[in-house]
Amino acid sequence: MEIDPHPWDILQSSEIFEIPRLFQIRRNHCRQPKSGKEGDFYVAHFTNWVQSVALTDRGQLILVRQYRFGSGGLSLETPGGLMEPGEDETAAALRELTEETGFGAPDSVKIIGTIRPNPAIQDNYLHVVLLKNCRKIGPQKLDPMEEISVHPMDPNEVFAAIDGGQIDHALSIASLLLAKPNLQ
Amino acid sequence: MEIDPHPWDILQSSEIFEIPRLFQIRRNHCRQPKSGKEGDFYVAHFTNWVQSVALTDRGQLILVRQYRFGSGGLSLETPGGLMEPGEDETAAALRELTEETGFGAPDSVKIIGTIRPNPAIQDNYLHVVLLKNCRKIGPQKLDPMEEISVHPMDPNEVFAAIDGGQIDHALSIASLLLAKPNLQ
Repeated sequence: MEIDPHPWDILQSSEIFEIPRLFQIRRNHCRQPKSGKEGDFYVAHFTNWVQSVALTDRGQLILVRQYRFGSGGLSLETPGGLMEPGEDETAAALRELTEETGFGAPDSVKIIGTIRPNPAIQDNYLHVVLLKNCRKIGPQKLDPMEEISVHPMDPNEVFAAIDGGQIDHALSIASLLLAKPNLQ
Repeated sequence: MEIDPHPWDILQSSEIFEIPRLFQIRRNHCRQPKSGKEGDFYVAHFTNWVQSVALTDRGQLILVRQYRFGSGGLSLETPGGLMEPGEDETAAALRELTEETGFGAPDSVKIIGTIRPNPAIQDNYLHVVLLKNCRKIGPQKLDPMEEISVHPMDPNEVFAAIDGGQIDHALSIASLLLAKPNLQ
């Protein structure tokens, strides 16, 4: 029987870097109370995120393609983004879907997973929300710097695009594969 | 037919923050050549990562549990970590597996996915590597600050732990679900 590791205590915490409205980095001086070991560890603080796995009333998954400044290329993804203060998970997922794609009016909205984008360095959660029977209700509402194309795709095509590497965003892959048993 | 967004050009790039041996943050001043729009965007530069989806010679998946300073809690995960300079993907995956668990000597090692941990803000890749028929070949080789417990689990148990939320690390979930069709 393996003995699990012991949690560490934070003895001191200070913010050492910030990109306003995006994230802060903190340096935490920590101690493992059983071993007495001490060290500095870094945490990136983000607000929680949502990913919207949305089906149309024809049973297609609604994906988006946008330029990503991290990877420096176009990326085919599930819609998603940052939760706003006071917003709940399903409201955030529906807002992101409608802003990015113009689709909305789902007849069912359900959280199918609450996961950690990267627990090694980030403190936030990602809520994966399944929205069914969506239809086009208006135009996209994009920020001035956003350019997003909308791609309704058959689920078979989407899972083939994951296998083939055309969809390579890990958080979209996790979201779509978590949703896969619930698409019917 | 949707017209896809256009890639942006980087006009100027400067490093504005660094945690040595972990990551750097750059501010890139970018322009979209068709629209002429300009703005500052932030990229976190990381080296590439690997996740090891490893099966024992008894058909169990080898998971690890460790304290994560980002989430501030214990996390049940696939082994993995940073690739070292000059190291290839499969060598890195085997090294991480052996260091964290003491398991090694696979009879087959294969890259089953090359994905982006977060293309919105990070520039790196995550290579998902499947290692089959591993066996215990020695003790763990941990860094002084690392404490990791080793948990061989039946695949059914692992996928139930994803569904139940006991495994919540998005990159481990993506890796395990990508590997699922290849475990036999």
